[in-house]
Amino acid sequence: MDEMANTGDRALHRRAQDDYRWEGVDYRPYKEDDRALFKSVSRQVLFSDPQLNGELRYFEVAPGGFSTLERHEHVHAVMIFRGRGHCLVGREVRRVDAHDLVSVPPWTWHQFRATLGEPLGFLCMVNAERDKPQLPSAEDLAGLQTDPEIAAFLNDRVPAI
Amino acid sequence: MDEMANTGDRALHRRAQDDYRWEGVDYRPYKEDDRALFKSVSRQVLFSDPQLNGELRYFEVAPGGFSTLERHEHVHAVMIFRGRGHCLVGREVRRVDAHDLVSVPPWTWHQFRATLGEPLGFLCMVNAERDKPQLPSAEDLAGLQTDPEIAAFLNDRVPAI
Repeated sequence: MDEMANTGDRALHRRAQDDYRWEGVDYRPYKEDDRALFKSVSRQVLFSDPQLNGELRYFEVAPGGFSTLERHEHVHAVMIFRGRGHCLVGREVRRVDAHDLVSVPPWTWHQFRATLGEPLGFLCMVNAERDKPQLPSAEDLAGLQTDPEIAAFLNDRVPAI
Repeated sequence: MDEMANTGDRALHRRAQDDYRWEGVDYRPYKEDDRALFKSVSRQVLFSDPQLNGELRYFEVAPGGFSTLERHEHVHAVMIFRGRGHCLVGREVRRVDAHDLVSVPPWTWHQFRATLGEPLGFLCMVNAERDKPQLPSAEDLAGLQTDPEIAAFLNDRVPAI
């Protein structure tokens, strides 16, 4: 049975390694982005299997970094796994801490930021079949920035929350 | 928007509480079972939503307890969340530690045991639509017990792994 335990995604048991990495899981550092759509985010797909209708991914944002500001039809089911920071979901800016649960409804702008000087790691469950994210237009961004709390969040000032 | 943040499963942000509980999440202690099919397990459904094809649940086994020995067509995608213990998957007995990943293939006997004097908490992702688990017959159990390692596991002796 030992080969069963070492066959990539279908492995029976993949051990956690130091520093929030896993054996048999590709570590994908996000490239830094010219348009500054995201910054200092890594991604690991923990579970993705033809027999599963969902996928479980682990994202980690380094201190000062942020995930892509985006929206899409599919929903995100997020658990903060490590550290603390802030997130934007719709027009809500929230301080989030380890193990908090965050739900991103369809077509809702969202972003996670490691605002508090430590890494912000989170699990994200999504449908295996899902639409591509939409990025904000200049108009969308202007609309979001009319809210002072959201403007502070997007402009990298730590929200007072 | 604050009502959005307090509407049960669809709540935008549900904070982690002490001791691996979450606000807005029902805590369901499993009843102790006459047939000793499971012992000292609690269950919390963290994400279950008509727009999600997967569900994410959190199970916690108290020291000395164990989850139901069962099999089914659907697969389990498990992450050990807290503590350590052992699991049986098929004919493999494994020591598992916090953050380890365990995949349970279709029709594979599996059980999680808090064998090491501390709680064993794990996240389990499943398809929202799934079949009911099958319990072992006396014959199935006898078949499993022919393997000394599995017999030790099932009879609550800490495996030397």
